[in-house]
Amino acid sequence: MSAIRERLPNETLVYLGDTARVPYGSKSPETVIKYAWQCSNFLVEKGVKAIVVACNTASAVALSELSRGLKIPVLGVIEPGAEAAIAKSKRRAIGVIATQATIASNAYGKALKSLDGEVRVVSRATPLFVPLVEEGWVDNEVVAAAVKRYLEGMHDEGIDVLILGCTHYPLLKNAIQNEIGVDVQLVDSAETTALALEQLLISRDIKAVEGAGLHRLYVTDLLNKFEQIAGNFLGCEPPNVTRVDL
Amino acid sequence: MSAIRERLPNETLVYLGDTARVPYGSKSPETVIKYAWQCSNFLVEKGVKAIVVACNTASAVALSELSRGLKIPVLGVIEPGAEAAIAKSKRRAIGVIATQATIASNAYGKALKSLDGEVRVVSRATPLFVPLVEEGWVDNEVVAAAVKRYLEGMHDEGIDVLILGCTHYPLLKNAIQNEIGVDVQLVDSAETTALALEQLLISRDIKAVEGAGLHRLYVTDLLNKFEQIAGNFLGCEPPNVTRVDL
Repeated sequence: MSAIRERLPNETLVYLGDTARVPYGSKSPETVIKYAWQCSNFLVEKGVKAIVVACNTASAVALSELSRGLKIPVLGVIEPGAEAAIAKSKRRAIGVIATQATIASNAYGKALKSLDGEVRVVSRATPLFVPLVEEGWVDNEVVAAAVKRYLEGMHDEGIDVLILGCTHYPLLKNAIQNEIGVDVQLVDSAETTALALEQLLISRDIKAVEGAGLHRLYVTDLLNKFEQIAGNFLGCEPPNVTRVDL
Repeated sequence: MSAIRERLPNETLVYLGDTARVPYGSKSPETVIKYAWQCSNFLVEKGVKAIVVACNTASAVALSELSRGLKIPVLGVIEPGAEAAIAKSKRRAIGVIATQATIASNAYGKALKSLDGEVRVVSRATPLFVPLVEEGWVDNEVVAAAVKRYLEGMHDEGIDVLILGCTHYPLLKNAIQNEIGVDVQLVDSAETTALALEQLLISRDIKAVEGAGLHRLYVTDLLNKFEQIAGNFLGCEPPNVTRVDL
């Protein structure tokens, strides 16, 4: 949302966080697809003109079904992330770290191979990174131990790009970069997804070109801290957030 | 379930795991109560004669409401755990580690104080212990670092008993005992809850005294590994597990 807001300041963003049922990354494809449909239907009812599935797990598991079933365009974060990684890799060897569900889907592997049939992909599930970030631990000795354990030997596989395949992982950038080494570039899909969204809106001639977006934020579970955290992420005053049932 | 099966081999147990929406420990009381009601209603429809809320968070947050609203007896795990801790503590100083939601509810503090008004309670939220166990990490350097960080200074508070206030935590017993020291006894509520359930069934004259229980297991999300894990926990062949929608 932060990257999209920056690139597309005239758009009104309707944000939905399914906080009552997170995390998605450890759940089965059937359940993730069911939740993704409920979230999408909610947004469609709000009258949106396009949907960004801003979650790697939901993108990996549910995007093709949503695209087939919805009448408005749907954009995931996997393809933009894969494109950015391919553009940056000179050795044509790319690492991917993500949740269990994303890795099991092989969505990044397929997206990367469809862009470059010769690229080598090294994938690892690193599920503990999500709760570490949720705990607010992004650069302490627990993080260092977890990063070391997960990434062990990955550098020796010859990768020169590592995709951070979960929206939480960019917050662990320091610890991940320290472990993987400075010769491996980290890629997250926020900015490339915002760019892909802009191209999509332009190609369909539905890009807003004036006015300021009046954003609305919805969550399925509302903890006290959420509005403060949202303000920190967006670099603004704590926004109004509404709790909804799906 | 394992402890109850051992103590009450003649009872038929109907198990429901809300795997599609776990974890509960980081969610708001409103959401936990809503989920606890949906789970309870499912079990009531299955014709059970009593319900054990075998989750510390749901016990801490939802038990009193469930007890008021249901026609069958409902037993939580907080009170049995508090009783076991009081019985073991000589210094009348007891530590509690649990999820954010359980600690925020102060359910253990209230239960302990109602048993002994003079007892001193030292509480800490240790939310990362759940995902560590889910990852299968119970005794490595990441666990050691997390345990050290969470329990720092707790021993110096003079406690001689530490309540493991979440069903996942007993799997981390070794690491926790190493950090907190051998002069602090660890208490979990599985066995005392099974005993409390037996007393409840006897007092209402509804304890099954013959036959073998024909258990049924339900989950809201079914991952491939679940049946295997359930078999490991129960010390039997992987049982049949049915996925249901709540």
